Amino acid sequence: MPARGEQDDVVQDIIEEPATYGDAILSSDDEVYTKFSERPLTQFYQPSQKRASFESLPNRERHEEFIRKSVEILLKDAVFEGTSRNNRVLQWTCPEELSRLMEFGLKNGPSTHEELLEILKKVVNYSVKTGHPYFVNQLFSSLDPYGLVAQWATDALNPSVYTYEVSPVFILMEEVVLKEMRSIVGFEAGRGDGIFCPGGSIANGYAISCARYKFQPDIKRKGLHSLPRLVLFTSEDAHYSIKKLSSFLGIGTDNVYLIRTDDRGRMDVTHLIGQIERSLSEGAAPFMVSATAGTTVIGAFDPLNEIASVCEKYKLWLHVDAAWGGGALVSGKHKSLLKGIERADSVTWNPHKLLTAPQQCSTLLLRHEGILAAAHSTNAAYLFQKDKSYDTKFDTGDKHIQCGRRADVLKFWFMWKAKGTSGLEKHINKVFENAAYFADSIRNREGFEMVIDQPECTNVCFWYIPESLRSCKQDSDYKERLHKVAPKIKERMMKEGSMMVTYQAQKQHPNFFRIVFQNSGLDKADMIHFVEEIERLGKDL
Amino acid sequence: MPARGEQDDVVQDIIEEPATYGDAILSSDDEVYTKFSERPLTQFYQPSQKRASFESLPNRERHEEFIRKSVEILLKDAVFEGTSRNNRVLQWTCPEELSRLMEFGLKNGPSTHEELLEILKKVVNYSVKTGHPYFVNQLFSSLDPYGLVAQWATDALNPSVYTYEVSPVFILMEEVVLKEMRSIVGFEAGRGDGIFCPGGSIANGYAISCARYKFQPDIKRKGLHSLPRLVLFTSEDAHYSIKKLSSFLGIGTDNVYLIRTDDRGRMDVTHLIGQIERSLSEGAAPFMVSATAGTTVIGAFDPLNEIASVCEKYKLWLHVDAAWGGGALVSGKHKSLLKGIERADSVTWNPHKLLTAPQQCSTLLLRHEGILAAAHSTNAAYLFQKDKSYDTKFDTGDKHIQCGRRADVLKFWFMWKAKGTSGLEKHINKVFENAAYFADSIRNREGFEMVIDQPECTNVCFWYIPESLRSCKQDSDYKERLHKVAPKIKERMMKEGSMMVTYQAQKQHPNFFRIVFQNSGLDKADMIHFVEEIERLGKDL
Repeated sequence: MPARGEQDDVVQDIIEEPATYGDAILSSDDEVYTKFSERPLTQFYQPSQKRASFESLPNRERHEEFIRKSVEILLKDAVFEGTSRNNRVLQWTCPEELSRLMEFGLKNGPSTHEELLEILKKVVNYSVKTGHPYFVNQLFSSLDPYGLVAQWATDALNPSVYTYEVSPVFILMEEVVLKEMRSIVGFEAGRGDGIFCPGGSIANGYAISCARYKFQPDIKRKGLHSLPRLVLFTSEDAHYSIKKLSSFLGIGTDNVYLIRTDDRGRMDVTHLIGQIERSLSEGAAPFMVSATAGTTVIGAFDPLNEIASVCEKYKLWLHVDAAWGGGALVSGKHKSLLKGIERADSVTWNPHKLLTAPQQCSTLLLRHEGILAAAHSTNAAYLFQKDKSYDTKFDTGDKHIQCGRRADVLKFWFMWKAKGTSGLEKHINKVFENAAYFADSIRNREGFEMVIDQPECTNVCFWYIPESLRSCKQDSDYKERLHKVAPKIKERMMKEGSMMVTYQAQKQHPNFFRIVFQNSGLDKADMIHFVEEIERLGKDL
Repeated sequence: MPARGEQDDVVQDIIEEPATYGDAILSSDDEVYTKFSERPLTQFYQPSQKRASFESLPNRERHEEFIRKSVEILLKDAVFEGTSRNNRVLQWTCPEELSRLMEFGLKNGPSTHEELLEILKKVVNYSVKTGHPYFVNQLFSSLDPYGLVAQWATDALNPSVYTYEVSPVFILMEEVVLKEMRSIVGFEAGRGDGIFCPGGSIANGYAISCARYKFQPDIKRKGLHSLPRLVLFTSEDAHYSIKKLSSFLGIGTDNVYLIRTDDRGRMDVTHLIGQIERSLSEGAAPFMVSATAGTTVIGAFDPLNEIASVCEKYKLWLHVDAAWGGGALVSGKHKSLLKGIERADSVTWNPHKLLTAPQQCSTLLLRHEGILAAAHSTNAAYLFQKDKSYDTKFDTGDKHIQCGRRADVLKFWFMWKAKGTSGLEKHINKVFENAAYFADSIRNREGFEMVIDQPECTNVCFWYIPESLRSCKQDSDYKERLHKVAPKIKERMMKEGSMMVTYQAQKQHPNFFRIVFQNSGLDKADMIHFVEEIERLGKDL
């Protein structure tokens, strides 16, 4: 903590005089001029030399020019140049170097607006441009212009979504969007329930919480300590959040039984039945299957109809983690990938992934009404008063485990208003076309090898094999040598800042690349660029 | 779900031709002109009549003017006029009316930019202005101008904070801010650990998770089913999230033992000891006390030093929920309210409350290194590769239960850079002064009665007693009649939009107002305004 009472405070005190809203002007040698009449007028119009005020209330005279200048920096450096193919995805600096360049340290006295604008430029400069067309590293990318405007609006309104009185627009908007999403999932007449969550992991946690509440409502009051051992099932390729949240919820990672996947990464239903039977024979209490629609690495879709039938037979809650693949539901062409999802009890679907809503926009959708509130509500008197002047069914906050909560709905609703359902569909069709084109481009190209020959989603996994390795496939150290190729190419692309794509090992496979497409601003030429760029970076290895 | 294949699509398809970046121009009767040469040039400069494009990539020609016009609306309607004392805090509409006015429904075809700008205006118009000086309704308020700029920057960069490679700036920034906050809490040399969380409730959940992991690390794998009954303790005035998250974590609400509070709302340590002994006598396993520094309603600070000594004696984890009161730590004048907090194992502190960082900015701070990761990590191979080109200790995402995660740090760091620690201190001192002035103003004023005579924090609880009730204090129905006063005044202020302050009942007390001060742009005249406004609204009741 910086020492208090430095000389800076004197300056700050002077400029807080209500009469000097124009703030003190500092000359280059930091001398303070408090009497405006002593200075030529032009110096008063260097607002960037104003010191920041401590008050938390915007004031046109004090802040307007600073905010406008900040917006100019953001529009230029982040929004337009940051997403231009002419510029880099990132400017690589190692952690030690970045610490020096960014001057993260906090001090006692205030900064001038000019200093803050410089800081802002640096923040943008050294940040990765996740909206850049060549950022294909994660299950999110893009900088949707309509989503961005809506985020900025959300920030300018700074809401917290728990009661109608505080967030009237966002409370009603959430209900409309969630109902529309349930309709698209195929829940009858869009009925059911839903919430916006801070990420798909926590959405999956809510699903587990609802499933076990349905299994045994006493859990809410009594907890798990006196119950039989609860067991849930998910595939070995499922997202790690199923294990992580099972642990957080007190179920324990050992009680997540992992089901084998087939050669295309889909849950093996025979093995699922065997594991359910195993849990029963152990005297445990199976209560839930979490299927995946679009696995994190391979992009596989579990056979939902078959799994739904198993769940019906054994009376298990069916959750579908469609955080990644859910976006395909808006496309007439691709929604069959999720056949059977309408039989799910709950669905995780993140519009911030395939549909490129800004971070974060995650939902949990339920076929059942009332369980979310029954499982989670505590009826806090200070927030959810029942004697309000409006119908308090609109105070929906108590079904969440969050209290204060950002309005993550506006960005997605606004994008949907902008593009229409038909626009969302075009977006999905385009990114699937791009992924197919990329896969076609490398499938028979020398030096490339597919991990899964026919990817189902828009993530494509492949190896790049440098020339030096192509004739060594029979060598005993081939896999070991191939394992080192992707990290090396990744290091080179990071240092050049030319693109970002991730890699990993899985099961028996040495490190391979996983390229991911969500950005519908990309086209076929970009797909060819990626192929050639990886060749350029790796050919001499 | 809207039907697909409407005529709109034709328009959309035409304007997607790469050659017509200027987009189609629609005449007022919606006729489509696709050949630019047929129209006078001026019509091309009506960009607001452009239809929204479906691509998720910003493009200057398509989007710049739309984004700029949007910013103008936000600056005028939300940032400056929305926080002006000359304007209303809200424009009240009941849910049914608002549904009609806002046209929330989604359609198949795209909107024009002009339509989107109108929609944006409506969103702002019907939203509550939480940055307005007269919004004193919740434990958050204000629209900090530096925080706002930093939020807009976060959105323009759209990061997800889990690895250094994707979020280099924000990963390092988080470590600096969390260390500084630990120093202020008083953890030795700022050592320990910490995370940004999506709200204080989930931060409290993390604390419970860490506490039980320390008590029994096997819980992560094995869960709670075979363990003795875990019990934790918090005061009856603590935030409801302790119960809610205990339930979510599988502990159960019955196993949160509520400790009585004294007449100023502080935890009764004698009762705490009694309840710990009770749990032991029941054969349960007490593992944690959650003390509160700044209770939600009364603003009370539990006696942390006494509680810390009890925790040491019984070997219990001490968590301090300072979500609300933590901000007082930056003030030399007020930090003694939290004496003993440096003995805590974990602390929840939300800079979005007293320090007015934008929603959301919540932290959990720990005195212990390593427990967060030990309790929560699952080492996903696809994200946390160990063979990267940099030191992967900077890939901190695995200690969170979230996977994708917004960068909530920038807004607070940027505010801190702007104001300096001294500015944060001035802010805190000002809001405490305001609260004291408000309390002084009503303490001996006819028609007002304090619930707690000497509030410790900046929330002040009081009754307003209309003239008609002042002589009826001995009547048997006095409390019943007083109970109806606050809801009625609240309804009137909502409908006029003149201010927003919340009310509630508690224990034996009929409904009382709780006014909350965080906005350092307020001054003494505003305090008097609140008093007089409540009198104006309620005097005839």
